[in-house]
Amino acid sequence: MLRARIEIKLKKGVVDPEGKNIVKALHLLHFNEVKEAGVAKVIELLLDEEDVDRAKERAEEMCKKLLANPVINEYSISIEHVH
Amino acid sequence: MLRARIEIKLKKGVVDPEGKNIVKALHLLHFNEVKEAGVAKVIELLLDEEDVDRAKERAEEMCKKLLANPVINEYSISIEHVH
Repeated sequence: MLRARIEIKLKKGVVDPEGKNIVKALHLLHFNEVKEAGVAKVIELLLDEEDVDRAKERAEEMCKKLLANPVINEYSISIEHVH
Repeated sequence: MLRARIEIKLKKGVVDPEGKNIVKALHLLHFNEVKEAGVAKVIELLLDEEDVDRAKERAEEMCKKLLANPVINEYSISIEHVH
């Protein structure tokens, strides 16, 4: 079994409203040292697959077809063995 | 400046409906090797702070007061220097 860890974030330049709201809310709570906030999503998949290259290729396909929005997202994939 | 990277996920045992839906949707697309999926959120904060220990302590407070839900979430914090 392999685990694919896919981190999906907004491309540079795409407005991140959730991040902006986090900054505002933290300032209201007097965390004034916070200058910027960005939010990303991590999807971890447990894969019944032994070949790391193949797993990475398939995870890439999953991103293209379902998990990420190519207009606004960029993503990175890492594959690790599950013990 | 320091960057705090906060990863927030569901505690073990808490049902992850988004993860379940991802598995279903991937199966519909014939990615049958996917056995489980879990979703986590990463919040990256840019902090006007130089002391790593202090930054970690403050990020911990932010999690407790706003970012994480102690009933269902667990989180990890890492601090790195911004170049």
